[in-house]
Order: sequence, then C-alpha cells, then structure tokens
Amino acid sequence: MSFEKKEKPLFISFEGGEGVGKSTQIRLLADRLTQAGYEVYCLREPGGTSVGEQIRSILLDCANANMAPIAELLLYEAARAQLVTEVIKPALAAGKVVLVDRFTDSTLAYQAFARGLDKELVNTSNIIGSCALVPTRTVLLDKDVDEGLKKAIEGGADRMEAEGREFHERVHEGFEYLAHRHDQRIVTVACQERKEDTHELVFAAVADLFNEQAARPYEISSELLQKIKEQK
Amino acid sequence: MSFEKKEKPLFISFEGGEGVGKSTQIRLLADRLTQAGYEVYCLREPGGTSVGEQIRSILLDCANANMAPIAELLLYEAARAQLVTEVIKPALAAGKVVLVDRFTDSTLAYQAFARGLDKELVNTSNIIGSCALVPTRTVLLDKDVDEGLKKAIEGGADRMEAEGREFHERVHEGFEYLAHRHDQRIVTVACQERKEDTHELVFAAVADLFNEQAARPYEISSELLQKIKEQK
Repeated sequence: MSFEKKEKPLFISFEGGEGVGKSTQIRLLADRLTQAGYEVYCLREPGGTSVGEQIRSILLDCANANMAPIAELLLYEAARAQLVTEVIKPALAAGKVVLVDRFTDSTLAYQAFARGLDKELVNTSNIIGSCALVPTRTVLLDKDVDEGLKKAIEGGADRMEAEGREFHERVHEGFEYLAHRHDQRIVTVACQERKEDTHELVFAAVADLFNEQAARPYEISSELLQKIKEQK
Repeated sequence: MSFEKKEKPLFISFEGGEGVGKSTQIRLLADRLTQAGYEVYCLREPGGTSVGEQIRSILLDCANANMAPIAELLLYEAARAQLVTEVIKPALAAGKVVLVDRFTDSTLAYQAFARGLDKELVNTSNIIGSCALVPTRTVLLDKDVDEGLKKAIEGGADRMEAEGREFHERVHEGFEYLAHRHDQRIVTVACQERKEDTHELVFAAVADLFNEQAARPYEISSELLQKIKEQK
C-alpha cells in the first residue's frame, strides 16, 4: 500500500520526564499508523542499534556514578549518531514513519538544565550527534514530577531515575522552556488518567502529518478500508 | 621530594600510527622521570578510567564494524572527557607529570584525515571532549607505515589495525600535517633501530620541561643525587 509522497519526513520524537508513559503512547500511535497502512519504526534513545545498546548499558549502569557530565553527554550523542546514520535516515528516505523515544530535547533538559552543562555546548553536541536532523514534530508528554517518578521507580531505579527530586524538577523546567522556544515543533500533551485519552491528544498533535485513513477510528482494519476504496 | 612549581603543566601526549612504539617510549620516559623524583601518571586513550575502558571495548570490538564514523568520533571524545575530568586535570593541578598514549591529534589523524570526517567537526568535538585541555608538548613518533603495521598486527589485529594500508597512510599524512601546523607544540621523533636511542630523542624533545636531575643519566639513583645535593 503506497501513499503520495509527503513533503515532510515522518519523524516524530516523544519527550518528557521519567514515568510519563512515552513508550505506551509510542506503541498506541504506532498501532494506529500501522493499521492505516504506514510502515512504522519505533526506536528508543539511547539504544536502538547494537552499538547504541552497548552504549546504553554504560549510561544506565549505577556502578558508573562517577561519570563526568561531558562524558555522559558525548555517550548519548554517540548512540544518537549511530541511530540516525544506521536506522533513522535510511528509514525516512524510504518514506517510513519513525517514532523515537527521546531525542535532542531530552539531552538539553537532562544535561544542560538538570546537570548544569552549558546550553551552547549541549546544543553544539546535539547538532553533531543528530547529524543535524531535527524532528518534524515533537510530542512532549507532561505529567506531575512526583507522579511520574513514582511510576518510573516501580520496577527499580536506573542511574537516571535514582537522581533526586530536584534534578527531575529541573528536567521538567527544561522541557517547558524548550516547548516555549520551539513552539512550531513541540506540542505539549497533558497526560490523562486513561492512556486511551492521552493517545487521542497525541494523535491530534500529529494528525496533519498523516492521511485521512490514519484519522479514522483504528478499529476499522486497513484491509476493510482498502476494499471500500476499491469498490468506489 | 618537591620541586619549584613549573609554570607549564607537565602534560605530554604521545602520538603516531600503529606499531610505532608509543607505549614503550612512554614507559622509558616515565621510568626516567620517576627516578628523578617526579610523580608520573601514564594513561592511554581511549580508556584510563573505568568508564573509559568500557567505551574502549566497544571501540575496539571487531563485531562493531558498522559503527558510524560520527558515533566512533563521539565515543573517543566521551572516553577523553572522562579521563580529563577524573584523572588528568586533578593530577596536573597537583603538579604531577601526565604522559598520555594518544590525545586530540590522533582523533584528527584517524577520524578526519583517514575516515574523512570534516576537520572542523572533529576539531569542535576535540575541544568538547578534551574540556579545552591542550598538551604542553606532543611527541610524534614517526615510522614507516608498513613496518609499524607489521609490528602492530603481530599480536592479532584490533578493529583499527584491521583497516587497510591506505587508511594508515592517510593517518600518517594527517600527523605530518598537524606537526607542520602546530610546530610549537608537536615534536616529531624518528624511530630508531634501538628503543634506547629513540628514547634519547624523545627525552631531548621534552627536556626543557623538567629539572636538571631528569637530564642526568638515569642509572644514578635519585637517593644518591639527593645525598650529593645535601653534602654541598
């Protein structure tokens, strides 16, 4: 099933603090787009490639508590460069949809706003690590910091989640600043009680990038839609 | 044993292609300086810290042959940032001698000249990864590319050594270019048949940074020299 080529690359990043439900919302959007006939890649940062997963395990290992902030920054950027080169750019060039769990905005929120690294330094590193690729749209999932942390720590805290509450408060402020600064790209979605309700808000934030089929209720299968089309 | 504080930090990098004998020359210089009463740190890049060694194992693993050039660059810079922050800067601040096996020049020679990444991109990454630290002196060990490769591969080739001959020829050209451009900092030392002869050339290249004791034949122990001094 093919669609007319869209002008904009279908590259959407999901951002937000710990425990906001990014992976759930990515899955729900991916399911809907897949049912509408799109080929969807769901990726996570750091990771998503063999090299990236090796880097991820260094970053999230609590034994590496003495990691220098600039080393941490550069490891995230290295994993990103691998993901962009090996997976994202080829997928976008082939007209596929790429949904990514964290991208450059997370690096600014965590490494600059929360860790205290210079913003220009982080921004320059982001440009290098992303190979200058910018998401077409960014969905920022917004939730109360304490609620998110509680949710995130349920399964045991990794090195990032183990940071104190104030750290995560600064992450939250960083995302707010970025959403204000890049209001053409970043759409803030307030997390709802039910994940299905949050999904409808997420979909509304990206709907203009996709065709009318994706906008239909996703209970209707793409095969059925195709049949209807063919009967016209 | 203490010396008057020198103005310049005692930070010397050793550079050169594969198999030129950097680690041997670092050991010989370290022995001589230690005997003269200096406290010497010998470090290698990438690595030299727990985080850095984890990064090193990703970089040198032949299974990661599809690593993107920018990811490779950023991994080297991440290991460097950790080494500079955790070890080099504190050691220099305490007046110690730091000898490092590869630093920013290697990154330019390998990633820009040999891999083909943009020189300005690599230079910017070097500034971030090195936390803007520049060696006081750089010893560039120069040897015929084929001889060096033959020597390096004796123990089994790692991912870098497994590159073709042309790659290492470009590395060599990169180092030549850098030595020309930074002729105040980089001293090229032609490798000799005997490592002891090479050592004498290496020492001559850095002698002005150290006191007269280091310049004496190193068979005389520092205790004996101290006794002689005290009898004056």
